[in-house]
Amino acid sequence: MTGRVSLVGAGPGDPELLTLRAIRRLEAADLVLYDALIDSDTLQFAPRARRFFVGKRAGRPAITQDAINRLMIREARRGHQVVRLKCGDPFVFGRGGEEALALAAAGIECEIVPGISSAIAAPLLAGIPVTHRGLASGFVVVSGHAESAYAPVLRSLAPASAPVVVLMGLANRAAIANERLAAGWAPNTPAAVLIGISHEGEQSWHGTLDAIHSAAIEDQENLPGIIVVGAVTALAAIIAAQEREQTSARTSALLG
Amino acid sequence: MTGRVSLVGAGPGDPELLTLRAIRRLEAADLVLYDALIDSDTLQFAPRARRFFVGKRAGRPAITQDAINRLMIREARRGHQVVRLKCGDPFVFGRGGEEALALAAAGIECEIVPGISSAIAAPLLAGIPVTHRGLASGFVVVSGHAESAYAPVLRSLAPASAPVVVLMGLANRAAIANERLAAGWAPNTPAAVLIGISHEGEQSWHGTLDAIHSAAIEDQENLPGIIVVGAVTALAAIIAAQEREQTSARTSALLG
Repeated sequence: MTGRVSLVGAGPGDPELLTLRAIRRLEAADLVLYDALIDSDTLQFAPRARRFFVGKRAGRPAITQDAINRLMIREARRGHQVVRLKCGDPFVFGRGGEEALALAAAGIECEIVPGISSAIAAPLLAGIPVTHRGLASGFVVVSGHAESAYAPVLRSLAPASAPVVVLMGLANRAAIANERLAAGWAPNTPAAVLIGISHEGEQSWHGTLDAIHSAAIEDQENLPGIIVVGAVTALAAIIAAQEREQTSARTSALLG
Repeated sequence: MTGRVSLVGAGPGDPELLTLRAIRRLEAADLVLYDALIDSDTLQFAPRARRFFVGKRAGRPAITQDAINRLMIREARRGHQVVRLKCGDPFVFGRGGEEALALAAAGIECEIVPGISSAIAAPLLAGIPVTHRGLASGFVVVSGHAESAYAPVLRSLAPASAPVVVLMGLANRAAIANERLAAGWAPNTPAAVLIGISHEGEQSWHGTLDAIHSAAIEDQENLPGIIVVGAVTALAAIIAAQEREQTSARTSALLG
């Protein structure tokens, strides 16, 4: 059998958010190379595979990107079915493009299996639609891990032109919020900070842009954090308030 | 049993790209309200449900949004498990937010199940990573169905600051490309037009921003079209060329 590498998106964390194709590739895998935040419930779909952790622990990579590439190439040449299992989607900040280039250069058959990206799904699971008729006809996704990553994209955006979703920006949240305020975004722009959505220990904070720096959330370095800024963020609270009101009306009707 | 509505994302089209959670909701559904582009292979996961088409045919809605909302509310009140099955992700141009608001206002339990969005997955399946180290630390998604939708977002973006993915913009592709050129984007910025990715009859065109208006593609009104503009678009060709070169080198080695 010819070896092959599948770069597979595992989604935001909950194994129920794996796609059928991801599950089939895991079932057929001889070897699974997986990132941090991929849990045992997900890996159980690959009962016959050898499994190697190749992610980061406490901010340090367990193995270099170059070593991951070499390992994938060697195993595929041996005729193995290799699954490179990544959080979210392989082409959203997952270095999937770099791995696809390395595999193509080595002549290895490579397939990319899309996954549910936290950029859209974490807001969704917290009740925030990234688009909404009359409020947002588009959205912006950006990496917040360094100023060199987020500043060029954010600085080019006119105030309130589209909701902004920042991944990996938790440590820089004060700087990112200040940068938006300096660019002319209104201090009372609705904002949310979402941590570990679809993982155990998930937290969400809802407030405004000028309060992000003091958001009452626990930093949990093992869980991914996402910042959302824009009017759509307030829809989560509106939906939740309507639900509460209706529940309370039903309770009154039952009692009264 | 209490009735409930699940707003479920079906992904870009291929049933293998459904999530496990979407499949479980379909299996348990009493009623499925589905959009255009949802095919029979996907609906087979809901063998016991009544199925109603509520999408658009030839640009006209089969049923108004208000009637869809009333139907969901009535069926949930009767204790039914209702699945509102949408293309892609329910919160990316799917009116999912509006439906969630209507259900909350009526006091109906509502769950949102994320789906693979074509905004990320159509480029991915065509070999284009929407982010790539050194090329793109973020990306922009916008609806191209009307100038009032795309212009405010695109005009606020500095040239080449991030790749742009335009959904539902095929009919306006010349206007969108001209708008980008007028805003100062380089004419030779790599661009792609992707039609019906993950559907039968899929097509993709790769070229440059100044050639989008004359892209040799057949308009197929029943298939969704996506425009991608930005340097990352060229990675698809690089990956494909490397693969060809390697295949050719292997063939030469075998023959020689």
